Amino acid sequence: MATQNSAFETSEYDRRIAKTRAAMSAAGLDAIFVTDPSNQAWLTGYDGWSFYVHQGVILTMEGEPVWWGRHMDMMGGRRTCWMQQDNIVGYGDHYVQSTVIHPMQDLAAHLKARGLERARIGVEMENYYYSAKAHAVLTEELPQAHLIDATALVNWQRLVKSDAEIAFIRKAARISEKVVQTAIDRAAPGVRKNDLVADIMHAGISGVGDDWGDYPAIVPLTPSGLDATAAHLTWDGAPMREGEATFFELSGCYRRYHAPLCRTVFLGTPPDEMLRTAQAQMEGLAAGLEAARAGNRTCDIANAFMQVMAKHGIERSGRMGYAIGLSYPPDWGERTASIRSEDETVLEPGMTFHFMPALWMDSWGLETTETILIREDGAAETLCDIERKLFVKD
Amino acid sequence: MATQNSAFETSEYDRRIAKTRAAMSAAGLDAIFVTDPSNQAWLTGYDGWSFYVHQGVILTMEGEPVWWGRHMDMMGGRRTCWMQQDNIVGYGDHYVQSTVIHPMQDLAAHLKARGLERARIGVEMENYYYSAKAHAVLTEELPQAHLIDATALVNWQRLVKSDAEIAFIRKAARISEKVVQTAIDRAAPGVRKNDLVADIMHAGISGVGDDWGDYPAIVPLTPSGLDATAAHLTWDGAPMREGEATFFELSGCYRRYHAPLCRTVFLGTPPDEMLRTAQAQMEGLAAGLEAARAGNRTCDIANAFMQVMAKHGIERSGRMGYAIGLSYPPDWGERTASIRSEDETVLEPGMTFHFMPALWMDSWGLETTETILIREDGAAETLCDIERKLFVKD
Repeated sequence: MATQNSAFETSEYDRRIAKTRAAMSAAGLDAIFVTDPSNQAWLTGYDGWSFYVHQGVILTMEGEPVWWGRHMDMMGGRRTCWMQQDNIVGYGDHYVQSTVIHPMQDLAAHLKARGLERARIGVEMENYYYSAKAHAVLTEELPQAHLIDATALVNWQRLVKSDAEIAFIRKAARISEKVVQTAIDRAAPGVRKNDLVADIMHAGISGVGDDWGDYPAIVPLTPSGLDATAAHLTWDGAPMREGEATFFELSGCYRRYHAPLCRTVFLGTPPDEMLRTAQAQMEGLAAGLEAARAGNRTCDIANAFMQVMAKHGIERSGRMGYAIGLSYPPDWGERTASIRSEDETVLEPGMTFHFMPALWMDSWGLETTETILIREDGAAETLCDIERKLFVKD
Repeated sequence: MATQNSAFETSEYDRRIAKTRAAMSAAGLDAIFVTDPSNQAWLTGYDGWSFYVHQGVILTMEGEPVWWGRHMDMMGGRRTCWMQQDNIVGYGDHYVQSTVIHPMQDLAAHLKARGLERARIGVEMENYYYSAKAHAVLTEELPQAHLIDATALVNWQRLVKSDAEIAFIRKAARISEKVVQTAIDRAAPGVRKNDLVADIMHAGISGVGDDWGDYPAIVPLTPSGLDATAAHLTWDGAPMREGEATFFELSGCYRRYHAPLCRTVFLGTPPDEMLRTAQAQMEGLAAGLEAARAGNRTCDIANAFMQVMAKHGIERSGRMGYAIGLSYPPDWGERTASIRSEDETVLEPGMTFHFMPALWMDSWGLETTETILIREDGAAETLCDIERKLFVKD
């Protein structure tokens, strides 16, 4: 029974759990313990800023999942998870950041109580919220169990979105359009970057109509000039200047679903080289979108973009995008398929990606990107509707 | 030589490194590899939203620290770290989220190149940004080294703040006052929670005067009514209602330094029990502040608060605060000393805490808190100046 606060209907959670159990079965697992907050939310609806302490979801081959966390966060579990209250369990506050006892001791007791003492249990070895220490303690507490790396097992089940999820991402896309348009409209020489970011955040969280804005999993990245040669600097209080490009890497967020969108704004008259590069980037984006078809692979999108770049004499390698959807900080990427030449994930209808072939050059950077939906037929749909160009304000 | 973008003077970084090396020496370590973004920033000035990929700082007993991260983030390192460019090193994009190779293989090569193949190297086993997998790979790549748990070794060096840091926290406190006052002023029946949060974020990031606002390490927590019985729910689009208490758990942030502050607002006429509880909470806070003196211990603050609660027949145990200062998501706590009965950290002048004895009851919650500075003499200074009471708007 979905509670008042759950984001989706019970049937949607049933679908997710069935899909996950099939993957567990294929991997020979009796159970998984999932710490990725996005995976927790996807399976149970749990939504709260409590992932800074140890918490997670236990899923076996039968029955409801169990949300496990800090005792004080059980109330949040009851307010947001769809399961019965018995399946929301917690550990005492004396475990939190203790150097004497560890929350994983409590988790081990729960796993034993569920008959998993000798089970094959999947854990997310490569996740922010499953520390090296957590793994060491759990291993020690369950000497007869087999802890098996199940990193991204649940994430891969999330790759093809349901219609209900796509509806959420479309709402996020409306908010993305609003925040990017706000950035483009307000950017001007003399405007302090933090004041611009304040407006961007206000636009995003106030949302669009009845669709309220949630917090994106990454804060606005808005570097100008030389700072834009770096990929991940945040803002400061310096005023924007004539003669500089600023890229805006932003996303609207609707109930934890994202639709990232980047555009670049130049104040003044851009140098010819930047204009030519921007032109090439748009041509590359168009080529990439054409290649983003069901049956093709993620690498085909990257290769299509790189071929256009090569034609224009621009070197670009590396990662040019990633699957997106439900997410929590510090990353809005889904951590599965990447758009890059070494990734051969076959595209299926319902997959959503941030196609992100940014160009970070020696003295400036250009980010123009799209959130895309793979369709049954034809090239990918771009979910946001903001003109694809270098915006010049002079 | 501090670069243009470094937050502090070289002498401040020298002090930090000397302090850290003394702790390393006491722990018998030849080197540490630090992944906590706050520790990285504290030692090197590095500041960027790139902690979602593997990165860290190598510190040995001699020379400058080395910032190591993704190749594309080296530009951010050059823009924000104080070290020479040679000491900003990176790994290629093909390592990112690869299932075939791991960034820790690249790190191991760097450690070997620095003669640390057989060294005693401290790693932060209990940290969001040092995964179980990272530790497994590093252990495998450095079979002759000793990887030793150095969780919080650097964090503990941060506990007593320098004057320069306290100046930053005071700036954050001015911003905290502004955001909390915004929340109190704008809260009213019918106001959508997300619209209120949009105003709060705008107030925080626009900052106070020349002191621009940075992003706090935790998003605004602003639950109302029953949701306020849960500690860590974020907002939604529901309108605020007459007859409900809403707590605001907020912080201003100045160049990654925080000064968290919580206040609770009741719309309408509060029930007598809530008024009595709020009165007791204020009395307990005053008692805790009196106990927060150099020479006393963290537990003395918690015990002073709990004694007042017991007198009023209110049960409260657990954690009632933590050290604060420099931080990155997902937590603005420093992850060292806690204000709780089992913690016996001796208070010293220059320590800063979020004294946070929130009361989460069966059907409502009250948060009234202070960021405090331990002084040479006398009771702690409260760094924010917002009246300490339950705010009632009817």
